[in-house]
Amino acid sequence: MFEFELIATDPVTGARAGRFHTPHGILETPVFAPVGTQATVKALKPADLKAIGATLVLSNTYHLYLRPGDELIRDLGGLHHFMGWDGPILTDSGGFQVFSLSDTRKMDQDGVTFQSHIDGSYHRFTPEKSVAIQENLGADIIMAFDECPPPDDYAYVKESLSRTHPWAERCREAQTRPDQALFGIVQGGVFPELREESARFLMTLDFPGYAIGGLSVGESKPDMYAMLDVLNPILPAEKPRYLMGVGTAEDLINGVMRGIDIFDCVLPTRLARHGAAMVLGGRLNLNNARFATDPEPIDQNCACYTCRNFGRAYLRHLVKANEILGHILLSTHNVHFLINLMTQMRQAIIEGQAGAFAQEILKHY
Amino acid sequence: MFEFELIATDPVTGARAGRFHTPHGILETPVFAPVGTQATVKALKPADLKAIGATLVLSNTYHLYLRPGDELIRDLGGLHHFMGWDGPILTDSGGFQVFSLSDTRKMDQDGVTFQSHIDGSYHRFTPEKSVAIQENLGADIIMAFDECPPPDDYAYVKESLSRTHPWAERCREAQTRPDQALFGIVQGGVFPELREESARFLMTLDFPGYAIGGLSVGESKPDMYAMLDVLNPILPAEKPRYLMGVGTAEDLINGVMRGIDIFDCVLPTRLARHGAAMVLGGRLNLNNARFATDPEPIDQNCACYTCRNFGRAYLRHLVKANEILGHILLSTHNVHFLINLMTQMRQAIIEGQAGAFAQEILKHY
Repeated sequence: MFEFELIATDPVTGARAGRFHTPHGILETPVFAPVGTQATVKALKPADLKAIGATLVLSNTYHLYLRPGDELIRDLGGLHHFMGWDGPILTDSGGFQVFSLSDTRKMDQDGVTFQSHIDGSYHRFTPEKSVAIQENLGADIIMAFDECPPPDDYAYVKESLSRTHPWAERCREAQTRPDQALFGIVQGGVFPELREESARFLMTLDFPGYAIGGLSVGESKPDMYAMLDVLNPILPAEKPRYLMGVGTAEDLINGVMRGIDIFDCVLPTRLARHGAAMVLGGRLNLNNARFATDPEPIDQNCACYTCRNFGRAYLRHLVKANEILGHILLSTHNVHFLINLMTQMRQAIIEGQAGAFAQEILKHY
Repeated sequence: MFEFELIATDPVTGARAGRFHTPHGILETPVFAPVGTQATVKALKPADLKAIGATLVLSNTYHLYLRPGDELIRDLGGLHHFMGWDGPILTDSGGFQVFSLSDTRKMDQDGVTFQSHIDGSYHRFTPEKSVAIQENLGADIIMAFDECPPPDDYAYVKESLSRTHPWAERCREAQTRPDQALFGIVQGGVFPELREESARFLMTLDFPGYAIGGLSVGESKPDMYAMLDVLNPILPAEKPRYLMGVGTAEDLINGVMRGIDIFDCVLPTRLARHGAAMVLGGRLNLNNARFATDPEPIDQNCACYTCRNFGRAYLRHLVKANEILGHILLSTHNVHFLINLMTQMRQAIIEGQAGAFAQEILKHY
């Protein structure tokens, strides 16, 4: 279980094509995972996700713990059964959401106490609690509990590692289910030496995969890419690598070129709800009046259900009329856009064309 | 075009099974049409509607005239192409919405001037204008412009017929497209003699089909059924009959038993957005705490996508978390519920079991 086969590694760029075996199927990497925060990828049915080509779905430990509750989900047969998704699922540790969403929080060396953003009730997460919740949910890939610090505050980031690293160790020890792959999360902000320190510590715990956290949270793109360049030669080649919370075409391609295998982001579904369609080089804002009479699809070359069946004028009408179908059709396109990009990138890696393909995409940015 | 084949008529009840030929396909009747007010059945893709078994979709002239505009839809190839629905479409006349939705309105013998509910702008509908808009939209079945009066005010209803009937005549004369079936709308409130007068007048205009309007607007069920009993022997057997705005299982069955072939209603999609699932005998309100741990589908015997894949606890979670997927899955079930009911009723009519089947359904009410 959790074998990671490297099918091809581009000799020039280091980009990898792999197959990650999980209890709910094989992930062909590089792979983009749409986010189903509350046990649903917003506006998409599981059947829609399959049709789009999605293979991995992320769901959020913080949200599901608060509502409907991880024990309820366990009692109903686990998250796969609950949400009707029979493919691989990844859950995060809840740490990021405690720091970004909860009304108030108080951290100590042992864990963090916080108030629910839903009803203000008090809760406490520790590494052991995060693992226990994730074991109740039953995802294929689970995450070590960590703190996601402000990326450019050296003193804070360094101090934060003194919590995150023992927490990773405690998560490793707390894990009881052999059918879940627990990933360690490399932190360290935008500081190469802290990133290296974090990676080297986590590698002593021999996780079946490594996530890179605390990026895509406000730092510059060059800073993000620099951190990936630091970690690419350090992290073990034979383990999958997951860059958390990254979801633009530009960042995905740059991530793959730096050895990343797995991505997730709310961006495609969030943009959809704001009326924006992802295209190479940026976005089409369908609120814009210039689309009112435009019969063309979002992208003539896109094979998604939306682009095969609807024009921009119709999509703009749905957006302006605030119709749910607008969210559905734009989410369909945007998630397909990133998944298809990773499918094409994978093929290019296998064919030894990773650099050329990346260049072809990145020239739009 | 617009041939209506009567496949079977139940000798006891008068319930009819038919085939209504339209430019976009044959409607097997009795048929329930989900409502796509703004050129979309809320929360359902055309592919979802096909999977559910929907054959006819209704859309609203008033809404599409105001936004995005009927001329725009015409220029983009008509409503079928615009909304990606290649099956039959029915548009109403806009009359009902002018009276129920617009901010202010002023009626005269020639038509009605009203303010848009969107931006307060002034507009005027006449019979000729309603037909012109519906010709721009290009539905297969279109409606004569009528007034929908309060059903139990005899003097008002009688006076209203003195407008609605000349309007029907003017619509008949205004129609230029031979590829649209223009239906007359029988009004007359809850008064048998006015209903009969209205039907007999409209029949002199020899419409290819007859709608029954002004019911399901506050009158009692016995009053509604009594009006259908009045009209059943009067309306020509060889033309399709459409009961407007009716959408409970009980009313559909009672309608078919009184010679109705076509129904439409927003109820299944509206209930879905309020967290309610349609079942025989009533509704399940999924906001109710008793469903929090309930693993059963809405209906064990239902073959819809929702019931085949999800339990009530999950649906309740989606409803409580205000997730779009809740609207999608409940709309899927509710629309399927009514369409499947009509499919089963049709089969029963063909097999000479209409009365027994109706009794089986109505015992739940």
